[in-house]
Amino acid sequence: MIKTAIAGASGYTGLELVKLISNHPKTSLEAVTSNSYQGKSFTDIFPSMRGFKSLICTPFDANELADKVDVVFLALPHKVSMAFAPKLVDRNIKVVDLSADFRFDDAKAYEAVYQPHTASNLLKESVYGLCELNRDRIKGARIIGNPGCYPTSILLPLVPLLKEKLISPQGLISDSKSGVSGAGRSLSLTTHYCEANEAFGPYKVGNHRHTPEINEVLTKAAGERVSLTFVPHLVPVTRGMVSTIYARTRKGAAEKQIRATLNRWYENEPFVRILPPDKFPNMSHVKGTNCCDIGFHLEPESGRLIIVSAIDNLLKGAAGQAVQNMNIMFEIDEKAGLDWVQTPL
Amino acid sequence: MIKTAIAGASGYTGLELVKLISNHPKTSLEAVTSNSYQGKSFTDIFPSMRGFKSLICTPFDANELADKVDVVFLALPHKVSMAFAPKLVDRNIKVVDLSADFRFDDAKAYEAVYQPHTASNLLKESVYGLCELNRDRIKGARIIGNPGCYPTSILLPLVPLLKEKLISPQGLISDSKSGVSGAGRSLSLTTHYCEANEAFGPYKVGNHRHTPEINEVLTKAAGERVSLTFVPHLVPVTRGMVSTIYARTRKGAAEKQIRATLNRWYENEPFVRILPPDKFPNMSHVKGTNCCDIGFHLEPESGRLIIVSAIDNLLKGAAGQAVQNMNIMFEIDEKAGLDWVQTPL
Amino acid sequence: MIKTAIAGASGYTGLELVKLISNHPKTSLEAVTSNSYQGKSFTDIFPSMRGFKSLICTPFDANELADKVDVVFLALPHKVSMAFAPKLVDRNIKVVDLSADFRFDDAKAYEAVYQPHTASNLLKESVYGLCELNRDRIKGARIIGNPGCYPTSILLPLVPLLKEKLISPQGLISDSKSGVSGAGRSLSLTTHYCEANEAFGPYKVGNHRHTPEINEVLTKAAGERVSLTFVPHLVPVTRGMVSTIYARTRKGAAEKQIRATLNRWYENEPFVRILPPDKFPNMSHVKGTNCCDIGFHLEPESGRLIIVSAIDNLLKGAAGQAVQNMNIMFEIDEKAGLDWVQTPL
Amino acid sequence: MIKTAIAGASGYTGLELVKLISNHPKTSLEAVTSNSYQGKSFTDIFPSMRGFKSLICTPFDANELADKVDVVFLALPHKVSMAFAPKLVDRNIKVVDLSADFRFDDAKAYEAVYQPHTASNLLKESVYGLCELNRDRIKGARIIGNPGCYPTSILLPLVPLLKEKLISPQGLISDSKSGVSGAGRSLSLTTHYCEANEAFGPYKVGNHRHTPEINEVLTKAAGERVSLTFVPHLVPVTRGMVSTIYARTRKGAAEKQIRATLNRWYENEPFVRILPPDKFPNMSHVKGTNCCDIGFHLEPESGRLIIVSAIDNLLKGAAGQAVQNMNIMFEIDEKAGLDWVQTPL
Repeated sequence: MIKTAIAGASGYTGLELVKLISNHPKTSLEAVTSNSYQGKSFTDIFPSMRGFKSLICTPFDANELADKVDVVFLALPHKVSMAFAPKLVDRNIKVVDLSADFRFDDAKAYEAVYQPHTASNLLKESVYGLCELNRDRIKGARIIGNPGCYPTSILLPLVPLLKEKLISPQGLISDSKSGVSGAGRSLSLTTHYCEANEAFGPYKVGNHRHTPEINEVLTKAAGERVSLTFVPHLVPVTRGMVSTIYARTRKGAAEKQIRATLNRWYENEPFVRILPPDKFPNMSHVKGTNCCDIGFHLEPESGRLIIVSAIDNLLKGAAGQAVQNMNIMFEIDEKAGLDWVQTPL
Repeated sequence: MIKTAIAGASGYTGLELVKLISNHPKTSLEAVTSNSYQGKSFTDIFPSMRGFKSLICTPFDANELADKVDVVFLALPHKVSMAFAPKLVDRNIKVVDLSADFRFDDAKAYEAVYQPHTASNLLKESVYGLCELNRDRIKGARIIGNPGCYPTSILLPLVPLLKEKLISPQGLISDSKSGVSGAGRSLSLTTHYCEANEAFGPYKVGNHRHTPEINEVLTKAAGERVSLTFVPHLVPVTRGMVSTIYARTRKGAAEKQIRATLNRWYENEPFVRILPPDKFPNMSHVKGTNCCDIGFHLEPESGRLIIVSAIDNLLKGAAGQAVQNMNIMFEIDEKAGLDWVQTPL
Repeated sequence: MIKTAIAGASGYTGLELVKLISNHPKTSLEAVTSNSYQGKSFTDIFPSMRGFKSLICTPFDANELADKVDVVFLALPHKVSMAFAPKLVDRNIKVVDLSADFRFDDAKAYEAVYQPHTASNLLKESVYGLCELNRDRIKGARIIGNPGCYPTSILLPLVPLLKEKLISPQGLISDSKSGVSGAGRSLSLTTHYCEANEAFGPYKVGNHRHTPEINEVLTKAAGERVSLTFVPHLVPVTRGMVSTIYARTRKGAAEKQIRATLNRWYENEPFVRILPPDKFPNMSHVKGTNCCDIGFHLEPESGRLIIVSAIDNLLKGAAGQAVQNMNIMFEIDEKAGLDWVQTPL
Repeated sequence: MIKTAIAGASGYTGLELVKLISNHPKTSLEAVTSNSYQGKSFTDIFPSMRGFKSLICTPFDANELADKVDVVFLALPHKVSMAFAPKLVDRNIKVVDLSADFRFDDAKAYEAVYQPHTASNLLKESVYGLCELNRDRIKGARIIGNPGCYPTSILLPLVPLLKEKLISPQGLISDSKSGVSGAGRSLSLTTHYCEANEAFGPYKVGNHRHTPEINEVLTKAAGERVSLTFVPHLVPVTRGMVSTIYARTRKGAAEKQIRATLNRWYENEPFVRILPPDKFPNMSHVKGTNCCDIGFHLEPESGRLIIVSAIDNLLKGAAGQAVQNMNIMFEIDEKAGLDWVQTPL
């Protein structure tokens, strides 16, 4: 059994991790930490868990954790993660970090949108945990930077097409839509029920922090500088994410080739589902799964490619991919604990 | 492994059964039948299942099923069930019927609100599958009438209090609220998005078919005729059910006794959670679980008892309880396949 | 033209008042005050108003208002209202107060659930603004205590039936359900989108502050002490309120009499709609109107009367009734500014 | 008073028209027709209207209408409109048609996506009722083709920018999102509550019938062939529409010029609101209004222009614009009956 702990368990991602780890056949959950709820019972925070999981939230203590666990999931805010992670890695505990702190190759790119990086040594060795694309490097890693939800939905379809030169790296657009749980459990007017209900609109147009994370990976895939136009929107649902991506095919690239390429990359992947022609993803089809659904349409005349991808922002976009990363790191069945569909209805 | 089939798999209850049975450690799913979708892939009906479960819907054929399975779940409309069930029982296949057809002891009570009963012999032997209260009889049963969702939410709290004479059998009221999935997948103006969204109100006031089902069980528990006032309401959520029940305590019954009684009946039950004082159920706390949460408040002066119960209408109110019944019938761990929390957020 | 001001315009009730007053044929809106947004444009707080109403929020100043207006709507929190109201009344400005501060006849009843009353002289002269029942006293009033939303939905159907001795004053129950806007615009975990969405449950069981307000009026109507059992619930919609009320008819009272009585009291009332037999109210039917819909069903055998009433909590439950009160106070057409249906869909 | 009738009043657009016309200071509503509900009271179809508007639905009869009214709004399905419209125009009744039948200049473009046009003479004289852009021609028109909701949201921002050569006519994309009421009141699985709730995704990718309607107008504005990439999505709200539009600026066009141009075209328009820098539209800001909100962001490096527009699909996208067209046709105040905000909360 892999012994695990979850730091920052009182947020929505924390809750998902607790559920996934509790239902995982090869793990035990040894500790949950929470700053704001220390000493409290986990079921007082999330009454749905009553009777299923009896846990008391403790403060984060690297020494205590080192005695108890093999891996820690950090479901913490940016900045807090990079303070905690080195203490764990130093004690030979593996880390899957769900913040942005260990997602970048380039500390400067990180610092341009977040803050000074205080653990840049560790940043150098951390692996970007986009499982399907970085599996080999994840295996040996001591620390994983678990991808953002928007980047996951955008990178999975685009990386293969850029690598295989089927689409132009210029003029890429992602019009993305997220459920409200992406904004977390902290209170704000934007996520106040009467403001988010029966509403829909874009936010952070032109300056969302996920943009550089996306561009760094796309640039590597394309072999030249990529600058995606990214517009996120808030949808009145609790969970789910859809990205509608617009690209231009390179001369000659036909629908057949695009399909063949995506199939080649993903047909053996359990968590990427390439939809048949004329079928498109919907948030409701991936809710409660670790899947990324991908559908596409090629406008014959213009060569414009429309790709639609969908994930559950809390699963493949956060806790699910984190568990998938752990499965790869520990070289157990990658599907363990993820091979089922939670409530899709 | 218990070999199972699900008849009527294309409805919402059918989908839940497919998911539960697929994740159940001791069962295999051998067939799904659907009248309207025969020959179609199950994932065409419910795209969320793509990659998880590959199934083709077949027409219902008792002989074929008899060769393949040990038990059939009938997630069929009233009337269809009583045509199919005898064919299965005759072939020594156990049946868990989710329609109303095998819920009544008294064929006349059934016929008063449904239609003439065409399998009244089988009705005599069928057991009302309210697991916590009828466990012993369920064990040996060949056919189970799986309780309605409203009755489940009302009977679990009331039966113990009536049996132990803590509340009066007169003047009982249940003000109940159901999510829209309770109305199924058939189209109607009531469940058209723009009509159900941002709306709330009662329906079938004074003549809901679940009332006689509830009264039959309450009458037996009380040892005298009970006639509950039942008012169902439609809530704009997909899944969930709350019943707010009003009763009068018998002279002398104090909060302490009520709590002690409910605890005594249910403290070892995995799927009934008696909430601590001043805590009350919410649909969101039971969503994705097979639990019935029960909280209560006794008005000191008036002796009025307010009981609130909550279930997931598709799980404890339908598919979850059906699986629990199967577990009991086959004498395996009652929690098998049900010991986890699906997406509560 | 009646010159008006709205104090506390930045809440949801304030917004409704601004819209109603702006569309009212006999009023002008001279000032809006807001503590938290002073100096800000009203359209920055509520972008929907851009182009329709250009207003700057000012701090509350009784002297300034006295020079400008005939009447002030106080859409302020409890306690703040009773500090502001006397200053206005002293300057001969009429006041419609939407807080609880001037709703009670009995200061002690108020103090038992709120705080010490610092304007009890004014409390003595203030009139409870339930328009249909107190019209004569409202006419001459200087200050109105605008009723709570729950009380409005409960009192309109019950007062006539109690006064005419058709129902027993004992054993009354109201199982009430409110949309989330009833909780206002202040942030809380309860009204955080992901907590309120796809959720439903009771709150403040046994101790909601509206209970004594309701009981004071019912007691007067019955001529004997009434103690209603009141259980409020939160529904995932923005606006709307339904109360399902349970009463016992007095011996001999038949459906016909009940209907005749309600019709006699309300058939000439523009804002109370007694529904025909077998029709019941729904939040969606009153949304955007100042109406209270009332439907009922009498269980023939038990004599149990089920009454369902529905209002828009922000209109008949708050801002709409406040404007109706102003219309009565100034003896203009009672329907002015309220004789239309906003977005019911 | 302008005498009006509404044909097809039992749909959601019909209901909006009834409300708008009933509150309009210069019109009377003489008749409502409905095929499916003839002989029924309008308040039986829409109980919210009880007490406000007493109307009986009649069958459509051109002779009867000709005796009674000056103008008829046709809120009918495609094809039915072109059968009815000529009968009215022949009798000197003005027509505002809300179907697609009279929106096209080119009958062939219409026939390519709908069906053979049976009133092509009338099509030649009909005016495309995009009020802000075609006001002069609308004035003298006998028949108006009221624009589709998607086209309205896309054309209002794009036409000025194309006409003034600030953006390239190549590579235009509109990623559009509509509330569910856009699909009307006819039942379908897509608009069944449990399917649309907690869901989001694209539909009709590559073949929505609004695309040729949009392209015809854009082509005229640009003076060269325009082929917009259009992807509509369904959002789980009742009403509202947002289009996120991607364009490339022509060399030299700066944010300043774009803003100046939009302001010049629209600053005196009561129903187009150009938002200040860094502000973006939201469905909730236009709900219940006849406004189109437009915000934009220019990516400095790439020259990519991101324009976001929002309308209420049932008002500026249908019934509101229809009334605005009538106001222009009859040369009364264009804002009459539209100069207020319905429930934005």
